[in-house]
Amino acid sequence: MTPADARLRVRYAETDQMGIVYYANYFVWMELGRVEWCRAAGIRYRDMEEQDGILLAVAEAQCRYVQPARYDDEVVVSTTVARAHPRMVIFEYRMTRPGDGALLATGQTKHVFLGKDLNPQRLPAKYHFKFGIVKV
Amino acid sequence: MTPADARLRVRYAETDQMGIVYYANYFVWMELGRVEWCRAAGIRYRDMEEQDGILLAVAEAQCRYVQPARYDDEVVVSTTVARAHPRMVIFEYRMTRPGDGALLATGQTKHVFLGKDLNPQRLPAKYHFKFGIVKV
Amino acid sequence: MTPADARLRVRYAETDQMGIVYYANYFVWMELGRVEWCRAAGIRYRDMEEQDGILLAVAEAQCRYVQPARYDDEVVVSTTVARAHPRMVIFEYRMTRPGDGALLATGQTKHVFLGKDLNPQRLPAKYHFKFGIVKV
Amino acid sequence: MTPADARLRVRYAETDQMGIVYYANYFVWMELGRVEWCRAAGIRYRDMEEQDGILLAVAEAQCRYVQPARYDDEVVVSTTVARAHPRMVIFEYRMTRPGDGALLATGQTKHVFLGKDLNPQRLPAKYHFKFGIVKV
Repeated sequence: MTPADARLRVRYAETDQMGIVYYANYFVWMELGRVEWCRAAGIRYRDMEEQDGILLAVAEAQCRYVQPARYDDEVVVSTTVARAHPRMVIFEYRMTRPGDGALLATGQTKHVFLGKDLNPQRLPAKYHFKFGIVKV
Repeated sequence: MTPADARLRVRYAETDQMGIVYYANYFVWMELGRVEWCRAAGIRYRDMEEQDGILLAVAEAQCRYVQPARYDDEVVVSTTVARAHPRMVIFEYRMTRPGDGALLATGQTKHVFLGKDLNPQRLPAKYHFKFGIVKV
Repeated sequence: MTPADARLRVRYAETDQMGIVYYANYFVWMELGRVEWCRAAGIRYRDMEEQDGILLAVAEAQCRYVQPARYDDEVVVSTTVARAHPRMVIFEYRMTRPGDGALLATGQTKHVFLGKDLNPQRLPAKYHFKFGIVKV
Repeated sequence: MTPADARLRVRYAETDQMGIVYYANYFVWMELGRVEWCRAAGIRYRDMEEQDGILLAVAEAQCRYVQPARYDDEVVVSTTVARAHPRMVIFEYRMTRPGDGALLATGQTKHVFLGKDLNPQRLPAKYHFKFGIVKV
């Protein structure tokens, strides 16, 4: 599957006194990336949560920072699914700045599917194909 | 009632590239202030929400910025209740820096009591005295 | 001058356990609104800060919350300048949800112009017309 | 060296609509952890930045989420230095909830020392011992 691209512009609120984006905010951008990936795959994350009661809880997250993003930069978050099972999914991210083509950061998040009670739950079959799960 | 004091230390994440605290974060500090006020009044906000299903939704918020807070500053948020009814409460805040006695900001938030369905709900009588509501 | 419209989509990070957007985040949205107002007026805020060393420090901020915004809502922040002098500017905001036309919140921020040393500084004349300052 | 413990209480602002702490906020807590580690080692991070012009830029960050933290939980961030060179330092974190002894998360951040121009810079010798760098 081709990566899904989410575009954002760096907010003043996201900078810190180093004059660059505070490191935790890249994880917020990864959230925008995976929501966009879902949208491109025909999944509205909000509906999956509200209608099917499936939550995508984060089990692991990591980021490698290559070049700092700055206020007002346009940033593209390219997201792919590296692996998916009925119990978990791994997203991978590349964050770039189209203005100069710079690679800003790469990241990965691993998620488990939970029910509204926050207990593990298998992803309903109707979502398997969309997540690229062909055989369980 | 005497003001309740919440103490906090400015986080790096709370600064922006101006080298001072980003203005929206003072509203997060007000939250710490009113939670501390509740605690001093014998109300654990978490319990009020979980056990009685009462939410304190913000209807209005304002802040006047006097002197900028900086990274690693210790800040005291002194909170009082300016007015309270069974349907709403108004908190007032003074944010100071004990290090040099500087007044950093003053603020006010007006809240309405809601049920878990986010509809307005009267504050249960057992909380009236704690909020200083003497007669309804 | 007609209002400038900034569009955004509510991030998961912006919600709280009440299931709605945490109140401090509306002030971040106002930031997006005034940056968009500047852009529409031919001012790139980043350049004003970097090249002319002019900072727009917040002196006062207020918000009135009408209806709660929720995760994944599209929100429009319509921004106007209510008043401007060479020493300060007041922005006004209306936040609406185009999906159902709901008014979510209104707000106002008052700013003073500062130099990089965080001392008050008059707005350079070249910006006066853009801010609608006709006579000083 | 023994771990340094930073204590914090979960803010309402840090929760999301899942009813638990939003995952990016654990990285903010790691910041509180390493600042506390520095303090315990006799380093005031603010002074290192202001007086010596040394910035601790994040090169890599990761977190493994074990149990969700909730609003008003008290959380302890225990921080150690796993490795240090004059050019970089690796911090490790264990986040626990003393209330029930639960392990909430573990994490790691790798930092490079930069000058104010954001270019790599060797850590001044006076800090070597404090970071446990015995021989360069």
